[in-house]
Amino acid sequence: MAFDNPTLTDRDAVLDRLRRVRNNTAALITPLSSEDMMLQSMPEASPVKWNIAHTSWFFETFVLQVEYEGYTSFHPNFGYLFNSYYNQVGKMHPRGDRGLLSRPSTDEVAAYRAHVDKALFSYIENLSSADFSRLAPLIALGIAHEEQHQELLLTDLKHCLFQNPLTPAAYAEAGSPELLSAPEIRWREMPGGLCEIGWNGEGFAFDNEGPRHKVFLHPFEMANRPITNGEYLEFMKDGAYDNPEFWLADAWELICEEKWRAPLYWREKDGEWFEYTLFGERLVNPDAPACHISYYEADAYASWAGARLPTEVEWEAAASLFPLEGRFLESGAPVSPLPAGNDDGDALLQLFGDVWEWTASPYVAYPGYAPPSGAIGEYNGKFMSGQMVLRGGSCASPDGHLRLSYRNFFAPNARWQFSGFRLARDCEK
Amino acid sequence: MAFDNPTLTDRDAVLDRLRRVRNNTAALITPLSSEDMMLQSMPEASPVKWNIAHTSWFFETFVLQVEYEGYTSFHPNFGYLFNSYYNQVGKMHPRGDRGLLSRPSTDEVAAYRAHVDKALFSYIENLSSADFSRLAPLIALGIAHEEQHQELLLTDLKHCLFQNPLTPAAYAEAGSPELLSAPEIRWREMPGGLCEIGWNGEGFAFDNEGPRHKVFLHPFEMANRPITNGEYLEFMKDGAYDNPEFWLADAWELICEEKWRAPLYWREKDGEWFEYTLFGERLVNPDAPACHISYYEADAYASWAGARLPTEVEWEAAASLFPLEGRFLESGAPVSPLPAGNDDGDALLQLFGDVWEWTASPYVAYPGYAPPSGAIGEYNGKFMSGQMVLRGGSCASPDGHLRLSYRNFFAPNARWQFSGFRLARDCEK
Amino acid sequence: MAFDNPTLTDRDAVLDRLRRVRNNTAALITPLSSEDMMLQSMPEASPVKWNIAHTSWFFETFVLQVEYEGYTSFHPNFGYLFNSYYNQVGKMHPRGDRGLLSRPSTDEVAAYRAHVDKALFSYIENLSSADFSRLAPLIALGIAHEEQHQELLLTDLKHCLFQNPLTPAAYAEAGSPELLSAPEIRWREMPGGLCEIGWNGEGFAFDNEGPRHKVFLHPFEMANRPITNGEYLEFMKDGAYDNPEFWLADAWELICEEKWRAPLYWREKDGEWFEYTLFGERLVNPDAPACHISYYEADAYASWAGARLPTEVEWEAAASLFPLEGRFLESGAPVSPLPAGNDDGDALLQLFGDVWEWTASPYVAYPGYAPPSGAIGEYNGKFMSGQMVLRGGSCASPDGHLRLSYRNFFAPNARWQFSGFRLARDCEK
Amino acid sequence: MAFDNPTLTDRDAVLDRLRRVRNNTAALITPLSSEDMMLQSMPEASPVKWNIAHTSWFFETFVLQVEYEGYTSFHPNFGYLFNSYYNQVGKMHPRGDRGLLSRPSTDEVAAYRAHVDKALFSYIENLSSADFSRLAPLIALGIAHEEQHQELLLTDLKHCLFQNPLTPAAYAEAGSPELLSAPEIRWREMPGGLCEIGWNGEGFAFDNEGPRHKVFLHPFEMANRPITNGEYLEFMKDGAYDNPEFWLADAWELICEEKWRAPLYWREKDGEWFEYTLFGERLVNPDAPACHISYYEADAYASWAGARLPTEVEWEAAASLFPLEGRFLESGAPVSPLPAGNDDGDALLQLFGDVWEWTASPYVAYPGYAPPSGAIGEYNGKFMSGQMVLRGGSCASPDGHLRLSYRNFFAPNARWQFSGFRLARDCEK
Repeated sequence: MAFDNPTLTDRDAVLDRLRRVRNNTAALITPLSSEDMMLQSMPEASPVKWNIAHTSWFFETFVLQVEYEGYTSFHPNFGYLFNSYYNQVGKMHPRGDRGLLSRPSTDEVAAYRAHVDKALFSYIENLSSADFSRLAPLIALGIAHEEQHQELLLTDLKHCLFQNPLTPAAYAEAGSPELLSAPEIRWREMPGGLCEIGWNGEGFAFDNEGPRHKVFLHPFEMANRPITNGEYLEFMKDGAYDNPEFWLADAWELICEEKWRAPLYWREKDGEWFEYTLFGERLVNPDAPACHISYYEADAYASWAGARLPTEVEWEAAASLFPLEGRFLESGAPVSPLPAGNDDGDALLQLFGDVWEWTASPYVAYPGYAPPSGAIGEYNGKFMSGQMVLRGGSCASPDGHLRLSYRNFFAPNARWQFSGFRLARDCEK
Repeated sequence: MAFDNPTLTDRDAVLDRLRRVRNNTAALITPLSSEDMMLQSMPEASPVKWNIAHTSWFFETFVLQVEYEGYTSFHPNFGYLFNSYYNQVGKMHPRGDRGLLSRPSTDEVAAYRAHVDKALFSYIENLSSADFSRLAPLIALGIAHEEQHQELLLTDLKHCLFQNPLTPAAYAEAGSPELLSAPEIRWREMPGGLCEIGWNGEGFAFDNEGPRHKVFLHPFEMANRPITNGEYLEFMKDGAYDNPEFWLADAWELICEEKWRAPLYWREKDGEWFEYTLFGERLVNPDAPACHISYYEADAYASWAGARLPTEVEWEAAASLFPLEGRFLESGAPVSPLPAGNDDGDALLQLFGDVWEWTASPYVAYPGYAPPSGAIGEYNGKFMSGQMVLRGGSCASPDGHLRLSYRNFFAPNARWQFSGFRLARDCEK
Repeated sequence: MAFDNPTLTDRDAVLDRLRRVRNNTAALITPLSSEDMMLQSMPEASPVKWNIAHTSWFFETFVLQVEYEGYTSFHPNFGYLFNSYYNQVGKMHPRGDRGLLSRPSTDEVAAYRAHVDKALFSYIENLSSADFSRLAPLIALGIAHEEQHQELLLTDLKHCLFQNPLTPAAYAEAGSPELLSAPEIRWREMPGGLCEIGWNGEGFAFDNEGPRHKVFLHPFEMANRPITNGEYLEFMKDGAYDNPEFWLADAWELICEEKWRAPLYWREKDGEWFEYTLFGERLVNPDAPACHISYYEADAYASWAGARLPTEVEWEAAASLFPLEGRFLESGAPVSPLPAGNDDGDALLQLFGDVWEWTASPYVAYPGYAPPSGAIGEYNGKFMSGQMVLRGGSCASPDGHLRLSYRNFFAPNARWQFSGFRLARDCEK
Repeated sequence: MAFDNPTLTDRDAVLDRLRRVRNNTAALITPLSSEDMMLQSMPEASPVKWNIAHTSWFFETFVLQVEYEGYTSFHPNFGYLFNSYYNQVGKMHPRGDRGLLSRPSTDEVAAYRAHVDKALFSYIENLSSADFSRLAPLIALGIAHEEQHQELLLTDLKHCLFQNPLTPAAYAEAGSPELLSAPEIRWREMPGGLCEIGWNGEGFAFDNEGPRHKVFLHPFEMANRPITNGEYLEFMKDGAYDNPEFWLADAWELICEEKWRAPLYWREKDGEWFEYTLFGERLVNPDAPACHISYYEADAYASWAGARLPTEVEWEAAASLFPLEGRFLESGAPVSPLPAGNDDGDALLQLFGDVWEWTASPYVAYPGYAPPSGAIGEYNGKFMSGQMVLRGGSCASPDGHLRLSYRNFFAPNARWQFSGFRLARDCEK
């Protein structure tokens, strides 16, 4: 699988990528009812319908309304209803109330989407070369934004459907997965010294991936693959959730208050652990990477195991040695994280795809970083507080969306993303 | 309009009533989308879809599963999902999570409804006369229960749609209402002495309406009609929500915390007050009864006006002098409360229909009351705590549902019912 | 023990009563440290120091500042700090923050108290006869108010000290109590018919005790004594707190949320039940009246026992047949509720003293009641919402404070008062 | 002022330092009443009495009970009551309930303190040289721990007394402060490159200050002094708290919810700003460093000013060029932050003392850090989550307590410490 980051210079390539992305979003919702698309289970998990409208709002707000003279808004209130968090664009509907919008209906939102698409494609096709060059980064951002929302759409939907005691399936599983196993944990040693990480500035990347900068790295070792369900079960059996010794102070407070006993989506029945997936409830596969794990749980596991999580610098330095390959969301067909399967000795496996990997790094600005001016500057910068960086992407990340320098971030208690972890440790000397 | 309480002896009359009630429910949801029917805005306001399923669950649980040998449940989980609060029937889905059920779909719920209907009608038609006599009170209860949920469906839906900044209309208004006005307030004197109130025991009534019992009544006066929007606006202009002097202690705490400034559904725009209705937003009609008022607000108004609310004994004693007539929910066509219009001198107007009237009476048992044994005893008895009695019915009460002795009850802060009030005062001597 | 309600005409008697009441308050706090007197465990339970200051504030605000020309306030901020809930007097310090006032110190509050006493006694002594007659009811109210706060001081202090895992004793027990037992439950039949209840208007009573009025009473039976700890333990052993069948709906929700398993102040150790008292922790005495019971628990017990609570009308009608005698707070020496001990056949025992008795009556106005005008009207009237009436007084009620018509009231979930209950039932015919 | 970190080898020096620290704590509470010492205004702010007991508990638990054979505990429950957060030592009293302990009294706590002191000094004096060498780091930790609690005692007390509308003074001001002014902001350029930060391992330091390690630093500029009140007022006048553009997303949510309009302890009266100090309320001094500022506000100010906060690496690299001098808590006499006063051109002023300085660095482990094993490992390590690093110390930090490598840490919304900030910016090239 090749990594086809859209070039910013070829208009046909951009249009093609845009068309595929918009189509992929549509493919994701085909099996869903308008009732499914209404659900909102918590403020952080938006209804599918809202995700669909918001990705059109993004193009309408940042491209069409700013750049396209004569563009007519689809609806006077949609700017308010589908603004996520851009204060500089205007006021917005409260995030926790997105599930209370039966109107506009799914059909009206589809019409909104078609309206925006029509204007957008026509607009891009008719741009002068100079204007296209100027706008291409913004269009690339809109594409990347929509790809992010494809993943969020799936994780939000999963959280919503999980609230239903009928454990409904959102999608049909594409055949039974081949039987894969996980190789033994092996530690790959990485030398220290000065290194460079971050986006190098060619092609599209989010602002938070740069500037590329020097970092001094201490020697470390990194595990060849993420921790599996089977390993996590060992931790649970050894009193994981009963022993404050393993936990950060705020983590321990949380698990006591919330009564966490297992990863999100896990349920025990008659001594066996099941996990809820988008295909319905399944027996937990001990060889698959542990998933729907919070940073807190990943860190506690690492303490228990006498290791630690890698920093994002360590992760990027190690991952730079390997190709950007993995199991992603191809053509809108959701999968679940699967075991590594192959075991080619020295390689770090599953760096990309399957599960996002929590790092030990709080999400802060790289040296020299400054957010862009204007509302678009709110995209990433204002969230650099109270969150941890995840790296590598998941089985729900669209194919072609990721980069080596890609920085995902969530609060340390968040579990509804496809999040797992890999261990690191200091080099014994 | 005649009061056609179903007799409990005529099977055809019962079946006919049952059929009409089930059809009326279906008529109410015809204009709604399945997205509208998903909405839940607060734990107390259930989704329309849930109301629809629950009214079938009631017949299935209390009639078919208990009485109909060989009845096959429609779905093994619906007993759990659609139980409202009957602990003795079994565990139930949390009330606040009813809006998180995209499955079963509206269509599946319709199929459930058809399944129950088919079994229920067939079962009743084939009962022996003796069995029919035995079961008729239970069937009458199921009918009354469904009528209550028709009103709740409308009040819940109104609350849900009001959360939408688009102020959507659920129903089309049936022509523009004739222009009516409110007569002057007049006080009707009522003598004191021993009187009897409560259900006399013939035909169907809820358990909480009896036993009929003697009460000693002190002389009082009662207003000829409910307080109007125009009068309530005067109260507001005179500092209603700013002056603790008028308010009960818990009421004052609530309005400070919740920042209440007007009845529910009212919004001020450019100095004019609008109210949200099931037909969309409308200018407040000063001659219509004040509606969506809490007990707290009704009591504060009465303090301000130098009067008080009537007790339920006073209300029933006074209302017993007048026929049970008023504006109700006929054939599933929702209306809004309208001005009294006529003014025939000595009569108490709008006692029934238009708006429920808060009384000064906490909802407690009548002397000698005991709830029926078994789960059905949970229908009314366990709610005799922390609630106030409302009397008379509203524009959303199904035609034929009410009785002179009918006791509605809600918490003193509840405002999403069609609730208003009428003043009383001690007789000046 | 005689009931010496202060006459309103004899100045020496009033002054003597006032002096004794002020001294009794001082006696209550003698064994306490200023640290004890700071404690506030919940918004409803004020610090002892605050209670001490507030009872002086009452006389200062309603007598001295209104009536005593030339009176100088002790401190410009005490009007704000020690106003409890009189909105018409002015703004007040938030109730829940009373425990955050290390200043004024206990000594300053004692000086405040002395300042008010000096002015008050001097003022009363020098009043003309006419002025004394006019003010006597207000002084009587201030006395009754301070007596109420003596009881609250003890119940608040008990709640505060109970938060301390050292289970400290506030007072020394006055010798070991004589060994008393509880007689068998016997039912006394009471005829129905028209009766009168409420204060008849002579001497002092709170406004809420009148007007005296006619009520029609249905025949009933009343138990000869309150339910004991031993009987309540039987209820607990029979699954009291596990069975929703016995409970009001809001009660069941509460006990699930709060995880109530026993009366307040009870703790189980090695299979035995202990209760915290103002003398420290003690084994539960099975013959003593059950105490620190909420209305909800009293009502659930009654359901379980196939009986009910008496209404306040029934209680007053029955209690009117017996003298106002019982175990009270004599001369500031706190006691605990004790077993009835004697058993003289036909009598209703422990009607007064030992434990307040929950009734089935919500706290509402009597027919014809109107609160006094002005701030003093906030004393009782504005609390006529969401509370239940208790009758009879407790072991912490000051001697001479009570009347047959006395109406105490608390929210149905309140347990920190010395509250128990007695059963009633409908007369079987 | 010299920096006299206790050597770990000279027993007399250690004993002397220990004696002085214990005496300084006692000096801090001399002016306070036992009522003042009871106050707890929030879970994070412990009562003075609790701080006093806890610092004795620390020596008792980690030194006497582990090492001193034959040591007798002062009280069997104090281990539970005065454990702060060491899960591996045993269960502990809930943090938010520390203000509910009137017992043990202040006197009993003083006796506890004397009991521990007596045993501790006697024990240390009689240690063999070998044992002394082994235990000296633990004693040094106990000393440093008590010094930290001297500062916390003051900040907690300030927060508690501030809740009192009487704005009481805890301490008398030591004469009126000399009139000082703040120099102009000047930027000092710092070169980039590899540098080393962290504790070098000689003498005492907290575990979290090491290991000393290499970091690659990019060139930057740092302001010569912290931002002043006058500068912060300019920010406020320019709409600081009304403009989401300046704020991190979680910060904006917080200030909207909490309605923050100014630094903690500031109140506006008639257009002038006052701040509450431990000496009472004072006019805000525009030349003094802005204090009681959260990280969120410091970051927002930096955004507004077109700058940023320094990272802790930058701070330490810059501060390493200057002597460890400043205004601290000398001999238990509290002061307030004062203006820089002098202005010697090129120097960075007020790096130490006056106000802690928020950095842009989340509090995480240095490369190679591992917490010590056992309960003492809970001292710092488990808090490495959700907090930001502050550097430099404050006017409430005990003299001799600080180091260049010292890392203080608080949640980004915390304001009750003496916290301010200094700006940095990327080097313009």
